[in-house]
Amino acid sequence: MSAPIKKKAGVLGATGSVGQRFILLLANHPDFELFRLGASSRSAGKKYKDAVTWKQTDLLPENAEDIIITECTYEAFKECDIVFSGLDSDVAGDIEKELFTNGLAVVSNAKNYRREADVPLVVPIVNTDHIDIVENRVKAAVAKGEKKPGYIICISNCSTAGLVAPLKPLVEKFGPIEYVTAATLQAISGAGFSPGTPGIDVLDNIIPYISGEEEKIEWETKKILANVNKLGDGFDLLTENDIKVSAQCTRVPVSDGHTECISLKFKNRPAPSVEQVKQALRDYVCDAYKTGCHSAPKNSIVVLEEDDRPQPRLDRNRGNGYSVTVGRIREDPIFDIKMVSLSHNTVIGAAGAGILIGEYLVAKNLL
Amino acid sequence: MSAPIKKKAGVLGATGSVGQRFILLLANHPDFELFRLGASSRSAGKKYKDAVTWKQTDLLPENAEDIIITECTYEAFKECDIVFSGLDSDVAGDIEKELFTNGLAVVSNAKNYRREADVPLVVPIVNTDHIDIVENRVKAAVAKGEKKPGYIICISNCSTAGLVAPLKPLVEKFGPIEYVTAATLQAISGAGFSPGTPGIDVLDNIIPYISGEEEKIEWETKKILANVNKLGDGFDLLTENDIKVSAQCTRVPVSDGHTECISLKFKNRPAPSVEQVKQALRDYVCDAYKTGCHSAPKNSIVVLEEDDRPQPRLDRNRGNGYSVTVGRIREDPIFDIKMVSLSHNTVIGAAGAGILIGEYLVAKNLL
Amino acid sequence: MSAPIKKKAGVLGATGSVGQRFILLLANHPDFELFRLGASSRSAGKKYKDAVTWKQTDLLPENAEDIIITECTYEAFKECDIVFSGLDSDVAGDIEKELFTNGLAVVSNAKNYRREADVPLVVPIVNTDHIDIVENRVKAAVAKGEKKPGYIICISNCSTAGLVAPLKPLVEKFGPIEYVTAATLQAISGAGFSPGTPGIDVLDNIIPYISGEEEKIEWETKKILANVNKLGDGFDLLTENDIKVSAQCTRVPVSDGHTECISLKFKNRPAPSVEQVKQALRDYVCDAYKTGCHSAPKNSIVVLEEDDRPQPRLDRNRGNGYSVTVGRIREDPIFDIKMVSLSHNTVIGAAGAGILIGEYLVAKNLL
Amino acid sequence: MSAPIKKKAGVLGATGSVGQRFILLLANHPDFELFRLGASSRSAGKKYKDAVTWKQTDLLPENAEDIIITECTYEAFKECDIVFSGLDSDVAGDIEKELFTNGLAVVSNAKNYRREADVPLVVPIVNTDHIDIVENRVKAAVAKGEKKPGYIICISNCSTAGLVAPLKPLVEKFGPIEYVTAATLQAISGAGFSPGTPGIDVLDNIIPYISGEEEKIEWETKKILANVNKLGDGFDLLTENDIKVSAQCTRVPVSDGHTECISLKFKNRPAPSVEQVKQALRDYVCDAYKTGCHSAPKNSIVVLEEDDRPQPRLDRNRGNGYSVTVGRIREDPIFDIKMVSLSHNTVIGAAGAGILIGEYLVAKNLL
Repeated sequence: MSAPIKKKAGVLGATGSVGQRFILLLANHPDFELFRLGASSRSAGKKYKDAVTWKQTDLLPENAEDIIITECTYEAFKECDIVFSGLDSDVAGDIEKELFTNGLAVVSNAKNYRREADVPLVVPIVNTDHIDIVENRVKAAVAKGEKKPGYIICISNCSTAGLVAPLKPLVEKFGPIEYVTAATLQAISGAGFSPGTPGIDVLDNIIPYISGEEEKIEWETKKILANVNKLGDGFDLLTENDIKVSAQCTRVPVSDGHTECISLKFKNRPAPSVEQVKQALRDYVCDAYKTGCHSAPKNSIVVLEEDDRPQPRLDRNRGNGYSVTVGRIREDPIFDIKMVSLSHNTVIGAAGAGILIGEYLVAKNLL
Repeated sequence: MSAPIKKKAGVLGATGSVGQRFILLLANHPDFELFRLGASSRSAGKKYKDAVTWKQTDLLPENAEDIIITECTYEAFKECDIVFSGLDSDVAGDIEKELFTNGLAVVSNAKNYRREADVPLVVPIVNTDHIDIVENRVKAAVAKGEKKPGYIICISNCSTAGLVAPLKPLVEKFGPIEYVTAATLQAISGAGFSPGTPGIDVLDNIIPYISGEEEKIEWETKKILANVNKLGDGFDLLTENDIKVSAQCTRVPVSDGHTECISLKFKNRPAPSVEQVKQALRDYVCDAYKTGCHSAPKNSIVVLEEDDRPQPRLDRNRGNGYSVTVGRIREDPIFDIKMVSLSHNTVIGAAGAGILIGEYLVAKNLL
Repeated sequence: MSAPIKKKAGVLGATGSVGQRFILLLANHPDFELFRLGASSRSAGKKYKDAVTWKQTDLLPENAEDIIITECTYEAFKECDIVFSGLDSDVAGDIEKELFTNGLAVVSNAKNYRREADVPLVVPIVNTDHIDIVENRVKAAVAKGEKKPGYIICISNCSTAGLVAPLKPLVEKFGPIEYVTAATLQAISGAGFSPGTPGIDVLDNIIPYISGEEEKIEWETKKILANVNKLGDGFDLLTENDIKVSAQCTRVPVSDGHTECISLKFKNRPAPSVEQVKQALRDYVCDAYKTGCHSAPKNSIVVLEEDDRPQPRLDRNRGNGYSVTVGRIREDPIFDIKMVSLSHNTVIGAAGAGILIGEYLVAKNLL
Repeated sequence: MSAPIKKKAGVLGATGSVGQRFILLLANHPDFELFRLGASSRSAGKKYKDAVTWKQTDLLPENAEDIIITECTYEAFKECDIVFSGLDSDVAGDIEKELFTNGLAVVSNAKNYRREADVPLVVPIVNTDHIDIVENRVKAAVAKGEKKPGYIICISNCSTAGLVAPLKPLVEKFGPIEYVTAATLQAISGAGFSPGTPGIDVLDNIIPYISGEEEKIEWETKKILANVNKLGDGFDLLTENDIKVSAQCTRVPVSDGHTECISLKFKNRPAPSVEQVKQALRDYVCDAYKTGCHSAPKNSIVVLEEDDRPQPRLDRNRGNGYSVTVGRIREDPIFDIKMVSLSHNTVIGAAGAGILIGEYLVAKNLL
């Protein structure tokens, strides 16, 4: 039996911090072949190894070293089966639009299209079912004898992932959540490299603010926990009446791994017990795993019983960074339940999520 | 005019981290003279400089260097006008009791007597009025011709201080608070030195747990925000009906300064606006300052407008560590108001609070 | 073809930091089967998972979880083919002696027997030839029809490994080194966990001292760079006339990876050029690799050309931690050559070295 | 007796990290009045508090807040008695030249004029006597009835200061030093703020390289330890024959305070003993202190006996940052003496040195 032909993958913003992670994850991927690397005109024409300031703890993969960087245009990427975008939001809007309107499949970490009504915003251990609306569109076009249309799927904000991951199994099991608060302690890798967070800000210090982050968590949670609408072409977004979300975000001296202190109140009474909550989280299996995606973790949510866990240094790599770890599940004196979640912000919170979405698109025959 | 005679001050647990801070603050104090240093029998008999592993960024004061350490007994401390206790809770109970039942005035950082009905639990920029119940007791005894009785006053838990400080002016101005949540990012100096938090735990890491800390915040807040009862011999503690408090505590790689993400909901409607809250915090002047205590900060609460403040490295020393700094005051989607507070955990959260309580006792003629 | 039978491996000091690393490296090892775990009487009788405070970033291997810990006696370990010791030096002397005098093969990270005349002190990418003296002893005994004797082989001090690794290829190629200095910046994992380096010492700080470390580097270098003597039963140790070594050791806020600033002067004139030094380091292949040991790195020494490398975070895992990385090779205004080396202190500098020595013993048929 | 009239002080590069330190130190200075603040055209015209991103742990002094920033021209600074320059070297050359050729006294932290034959390069606890050549020039001009000429005095590189400070007393007492090596562990505040060292580079990491730093130490040491020549208009620079200097520089996760591992060999035999070296360092009193400069430390060199000192967190503020602390003085197996020095890089290594030079110029009547 011959090996399946790999899909040709492109990476936009290949020299940036998210782009570097895409390249690492694509290096020996069973579904994808690294085919195109795009960056700014300053880097275009250079070999990747000469253009990049590589800042990963894993070595630059050999198969990426000598790829000649192109500019980020449809023309350059038109042969790709899928394009992963690590572009900054100031340029992502136009470039991504050029690609998906011309028929390409784009999976983007940028925030630009997250709020569009017909764009899935996906945490792949949570809501791959949202990709149904893309599937519906593609099937309808094919049924009409049209060319397979391009589309974009957005990766969620990193700190949103660590919140909605433990919420999803609880909503499925115990019904709607009325209130949820999250105080985040976010790693500096989330801020990128050029220049990213200055050294003096992370030495013996906390920065109690991340621009736009709280708004992202508060809005994105409502979209990700929503259901696909009856027409199958959009989402029944949750409203303030359905769920109220309040976030406080801080930057802490941690390289990778976002810690979040979460409190929540269910709508239905009586609320589930601490033990029921733990069991629901342990029992949860995500669709991406059921669908057979390579990177999907068997345990989407890892529940720890030790008082002092999860910890970023010890737990961020569980499930190769695709699992979200939850600990200190206990009663809350105001709401129902308190807990601490930990998610790997550059894996399930960014590039890894993109790759897992890509695997799901392969499995669903959408590329 | 001759200088006033200074009060003789003793320090229990003098070699520990809180004891070291007491000694620093007493070194050139206008009210107090460093008179006795007590530690375990292992250190007793030695010169202080030979027994201590000094870990402060300020140098060991010369006037403490050659003091011979005594054991922690009433006999050794009976000549003191006031005794500051930095003892660990496993030994503080018995030792402190021996001293105050024999007539000494004790100001303690240990948790042992904080919940006693007739013991003031004091954050000195918040509730020095609680000391009235001691004053009443002393006056009553004196009126009866009895000997001035001993007593103990407890310093609050460090992270409690950073929460109740901004709550107090708001309760005074806008009435009771129904709900308050605090997610804390606490400095390692709060964990002491021997051994304290291990290095490997604070390097590229967060510890999402501090033993007993959340319970302390949740209970102590109710006592500190209470009023003295009508008889003047205890407190009308707040109940779960009066205020619900929920805390989540983490240890972060910061040397000094506890950051707290606070959300709160007032009982009265309409709730004050963000601007009214800021103004109330700015206008607040604590009684210790009005009473003329040397260390009392003019601005008990410093309100910052910059998005990314307060930060531990930049703001912990405001008011010499006696002020609490508050920033990011904004509307909360669930409760009324969100904010971030920063307090110097070894000053207003521990030894400094003790010294300021001592100054208040001098001003009130209670020593 | 059936799989080869794995050797039965025991671990002494199994709950400590070095012991934990041994267990990780033995978890899925092609040569070894995890067979016995020994610890203090406090832990003996418990399941490993219940006795250990696991502090590794990799998860506790499943095959170690339920092993019942034994005490560290010959009786308990007598069925082992090899015993890896992570014992503290205060107990290692007697325990290890009991084992090897009774016929067991012991590979130890403790310092107790490093200076014995007939004990190889081995950095396995440098001087596995020193194990010849053990081989000679074993063969002689077997030739006489005696029972195969026990023996001990010592792992070098962690910071010694990062120094001698780049020296060895240079001595081989260019002859003796007259002077070498090393200023080390050592990671905190080298100090163990209980309690290890206190958090307050590694936050915004450097500790310019590690007890006994400089003496170890200065002495061990002379033994490791020595040749086996003519009789094949000991070493022609280098003297102060052969090589002068001076070390200055500091502890820095790094989790894993020792950085060393090295300067050296060759005895022979003219000294090799910078380029010749680089080439010699690049060309070096260690005997353990030639012998086919699984963990031996193809490139024992990785030479980097970038100005700002090696860096602990980026380079410590090269060769899975078994390679030593060298950068900034340049002329020295006083001696001949300056360079910076980086070695993973818990892999090639401790437990990993032990495992690689074990693999070499298997290859040499010495178990 | 009326207070002396303060000298009018200007600061170039006022919004940068060195400029901020100048402003802090000038805030309540007995000799100087903060008179002009210069920055780039982007900031000129704004109030200082609106233009600066203040990153100091001390608050922005009130008397600086509302000063209107000017451009860095002679015209704007011509009324100043002294100008302190914190300019970056890419612009410092032209601007400083315009000022001193027009008659102003400039004290600069930039490197541009450090190597000029007639420009003193000064560590003010080491070689204020080098300012004699300026004094001679000024006196000669005045004697000829000419206008008092302008001049520039350069502050040394920060890591040079921590090396030459302990060398100077030893050269004075025991004669020339033949060899000296320094491996430095430098704080990130030395890299400035915009952007300075990235956070990801200082978290669990060491950067073994600082551009140009080693060359600066190796050259500047020869000028600072030189004597004024016979003509009194320049220096008899040391040559490679007089002293050989070799430096290896690293950046470490420390906010303030450069640690240096130093080894040295004297020219004269027998070399002094460890005790003699300690005594010479303890006995040293710098000229700036004898001259009565306010900021000059009584103990230029603080000698510590504890094994594990000096440490940046504990010792950097000795003498308010103007003292250099030395510990671990011991025999060196290759050279004569090893030791560890610690210097506050932004005080005696930069802005503080400038202020102390300014005080010396006042004392010498050179402004």
